[in-house]
Amino acid sequence: MIQATMMNFPLTLNHILERVVQLYPQTEVVSRLPDHTLHRYTYADFYHRSRQLAESLQLAGLKRGDRVATLMWNHYAHLEAYFGIAASGGVTHTLNLRLHPNDISYIVQHAQDRFLIVDDVLLPFVKQIVTQVQFERIFVVPLSGLPIPEGFESYEDLLATATGDFAYPEISEDDAVAMCYTSGTTGRPKGVVYSHRAMVLHSFAITNVDTFAISSRDVVTAVVPMFHANGWGVPYAAVMAGAKQVLPGPHLDPQSLLNLFEAEQVTFAAGVPTIWLGIAQLLEKEPQRFNLQRIRMAVGGSAVPEGLIRTFDRFHLEVIHAWGMTETTPTATVSRLKPHMAFATDKERYQTRAKQGMAVPFVEMRAVNEDGVVPCDGETMGELQVRGPWITGSYYGDETLQNNFTADGWFQTGDVVNIDSEGYMKIVDRTKDLIKSGGEWISSVDIEGALMDHPDVLEASVVGVTHPKWQERPIAAVVFKEGRQVSKEELLQFLSERFPKWWLPDDFVFVAEIPRTSAGKFYKKALREQFKDWQWDHQE
Amino acid sequence: MIQATMMNFPLTLNHILERVVQLYPQTEVVSRLPDHTLHRYTYADFYHRSRQLAESLQLAGLKRGDRVATLMWNHYAHLEAYFGIAASGGVTHTLNLRLHPNDISYIVQHAQDRFLIVDDVLLPFVKQIVTQVQFERIFVVPLSGLPIPEGFESYEDLLATATGDFAYPEISEDDAVAMCYTSGTTGRPKGVVYSHRAMVLHSFAITNVDTFAISSRDVVTAVVPMFHANGWGVPYAAVMAGAKQVLPGPHLDPQSLLNLFEAEQVTFAAGVPTIWLGIAQLLEKEPQRFNLQRIRMAVGGSAVPEGLIRTFDRFHLEVIHAWGMTETTPTATVSRLKPHMAFATDKERYQTRAKQGMAVPFVEMRAVNEDGVVPCDGETMGELQVRGPWITGSYYGDETLQNNFTADGWFQTGDVVNIDSEGYMKIVDRTKDLIKSGGEWISSVDIEGALMDHPDVLEASVVGVTHPKWQERPIAAVVFKEGRQVSKEELLQFLSERFPKWWLPDDFVFVAEIPRTSAGKFYKKALREQFKDWQWDHQE
Repeated sequence: MIQATMMNFPLTLNHILERVVQLYPQTEVVSRLPDHTLHRYTYADFYHRSRQLAESLQLAGLKRGDRVATLMWNHYAHLEAYFGIAASGGVTHTLNLRLHPNDISYIVQHAQDRFLIVDDVLLPFVKQIVTQVQFERIFVVPLSGLPIPEGFESYEDLLATATGDFAYPEISEDDAVAMCYTSGTTGRPKGVVYSHRAMVLHSFAITNVDTFAISSRDVVTAVVPMFHANGWGVPYAAVMAGAKQVLPGPHLDPQSLLNLFEAEQVTFAAGVPTIWLGIAQLLEKEPQRFNLQRIRMAVGGSAVPEGLIRTFDRFHLEVIHAWGMTETTPTATVSRLKPHMAFATDKERYQTRAKQGMAVPFVEMRAVNEDGVVPCDGETMGELQVRGPWITGSYYGDETLQNNFTADGWFQTGDVVNIDSEGYMKIVDRTKDLIKSGGEWISSVDIEGALMDHPDVLEASVVGVTHPKWQERPIAAVVFKEGRQVSKEELLQFLSERFPKWWLPDDFVFVAEIPRTSAGKFYKKALREQFKDWQWDHQE
Repeated sequence: MIQATMMNFPLTLNHILERVVQLYPQTEVVSRLPDHTLHRYTYADFYHRSRQLAESLQLAGLKRGDRVATLMWNHYAHLEAYFGIAASGGVTHTLNLRLHPNDISYIVQHAQDRFLIVDDVLLPFVKQIVTQVQFERIFVVPLSGLPIPEGFESYEDLLATATGDFAYPEISEDDAVAMCYTSGTTGRPKGVVYSHRAMVLHSFAITNVDTFAISSRDVVTAVVPMFHANGWGVPYAAVMAGAKQVLPGPHLDPQSLLNLFEAEQVTFAAGVPTIWLGIAQLLEKEPQRFNLQRIRMAVGGSAVPEGLIRTFDRFHLEVIHAWGMTETTPTATVSRLKPHMAFATDKERYQTRAKQGMAVPFVEMRAVNEDGVVPCDGETMGELQVRGPWITGSYYGDETLQNNFTADGWFQTGDVVNIDSEGYMKIVDRTKDLIKSGGEWISSVDIEGALMDHPDVLEASVVGVTHPKWQERPIAAVVFKEGRQVSKEELLQFLSERFPKWWLPDDFVFVAEIPRTSAGKFYKKALREQFKDWQWDHQE
């Protein structure tokens, strides 16, 4: 058989690192530090220090495939870790600083992390876990200006051990380069190990015009923490594109972010809906205060209410709804309108944009129920299954989790979805959050979205609560906007315009806030726990 | 060592074919036929017929890796061949219909092509080669409406043998999917065999925002023939993006093209400078006649004179200068301005856009002379060497050609270039076209470009001619624009503003046209032959 004559050239992050210094050495990386000041340097500086990190880690004994944990906010040193650890042949293991210390300890032990790089402002957190785990060495990034405490080493001192005599180790594109544990709401955290190849292909997919269209002309901000699924791959993609990066550090409140967007002329940002919800509120209150560029805002992590997309359009900010998971590197789908949809009604366009969207190139998806693959009719529900070169095929070091994958090689996401005839996927619910009422299914996500479209409602979460007759019935927890209030009757009336009667919540609970997971998703387990002994008013 | 947990999902054209029917079934493919009428169908039709082709080829006995030759203009059936032969597991071997029949015969034999798919209007050409080669079967695409002659089979009859019961064969992303022979001006044609992986990665690279930014919103025309280096990969990339395609068929004169661009609202086109030169002349003559969209025009194959870029800017048409070879799939560099260059002078911006540009992501380049890799100072010349996942690492079936590759794995392009501090590469000349005068080098390309900037000059080609004292001296062949004429003295004066005296041509020959290769490049071998017994006027 004829053989292709193409070179065997691996897809690695090392190429991306070398490229950026050749083509964009003067482009800036701007980081906001804990004291609110800005740290600025160029990709030339970034390149130099990333290679220093790579060499110094090798001098410290790091071997190909060894894990280096990071416990950091989004800033220059975390970006150096992303590329420097990769360049050394090591694996960057991002730790989620919002997890419980016990979970972190479990993760560190399970991944067998050798070293830790940590922000000095996060040292109190480290002190809670070092009683349970043993890192060989801990390198502290001096961000606050305070001296490094006894018993820890400085990240800057580590870098200073580099001689400049560095050469990349021989690696394959299938080599591990990063890992992340899911912060799911049930069970033990599960580890996903990314390859160089996955990171590179993911970077191509998200810089694509029909995905996020990231280019050298952009000023890019990953608001999403770099410890969440690779900061959605945005930091990698921005380096590949040679885009200026603005990293927000620990200050993620609406005012800090808007000041940063304004000062650095940000044109692309990525983050969860909660972040944008706060920003929308501030913009509504003070529409003239911030002088922003037009910003493309990639939003994911949970469903974006249609109303939020409309609100942002009023401020000339474009919400791009996307979907992914830790297991999918993460970007798998994106909701951008097709050219012919320019002629659709306003309502149809927003409905489509509020879906999770079309699979990006080289991701394949299908929805499956007990009868097999469901038709793409925009109605029939099934569990979402995906596959592709940046989708995980297993969990690290745990064969018992192979039941998350089908026999024919698809990842079972645990999301219940429908897919319409245009190929747009809509998440109806998590499998475990679907409300089973009298043998039928009710989507908690749909009711939540509708409630959040009410002008006086800030947030809403809906859970199924055990019911003596119907198996489960929905109860809604609702947070009002500041100074606003509405009656249960009005909310019921509002919802009844959209849903059949049997979908309407049996009751509403008005609360100050809704518990969230470390990834910013509604923590429904806590709500279910709270409502588990619910006294049903109307026993029929 | 830790293993990445990512799926083993191959990068193949089959994914792209399946994707386009799921997401863009109603988007059109428009082909201009030999009688100037338009053939229109959708990607759903294209998908259906491509799979019919795949199945019918398998039924005809095609095995994985077998070659199917095509001898076709750019139209729907050639696009079906691109994807249908790939889907069957076969290899599409595009034949260059502008080559001499003897060369085609050599190529067909060397590649061991089993089948041929050919346009009915090109059958006279086939009759010249079938005396020398034996295809097992020849399938004729009925474009002209005339009956298929005795002794040939209809492509439509082939497709009709498909039952619809088709499944993709198991393939690897490294499998061969297409091949093309270089139409170089010296030596035997050399074969390059592309893999699925190379085609997919090349599609990602050229759809990239900083390359050609091809998206689902575009209307894309490959003016460059699909038998030249995969139509520069544009047909593949357009299907991946779900962009409408407009295929021009055999009519490539300026008026036919401009009518097509206008009628179909083309937004992106790719072709060689000769094509654009003719279009520029027509637009200059009748600036109000065509109502065009803003078109991004990828131009490559030979250097684009700065003046041509300026001319097009006046018509709101954006020239994107790119460079590549059959050996590079082909796109390797692209000249787009970096954001900070918005502040450069008009002159600087055009000078940069007239360079061949920066390496696209995952292509690496360097210039090498006898002292090693030359500095990126925009002056020092060296031979361009490239590597990357879509660069060939050998020639098909010819080990003697391995001297085209360095010991450390780079492809030696045979182009002499400089690279500036911003990373923009500029082709100074082909190694063999450089003029060696008195121990120094003169760039024939630079003088040609300068001559073509003269308002009365249409085209110019400069070659080195053997000289008794200086080894070689430049002689320029010049074609004037219609109705224009200038003296040798004026041309010398014009050039002397840009070049040292010893670079100036010793003489000018005014001709009606300059001989070209089948790829549209100046055929300098013919000029050198014509000038070889030059009578030097001024023997010093």
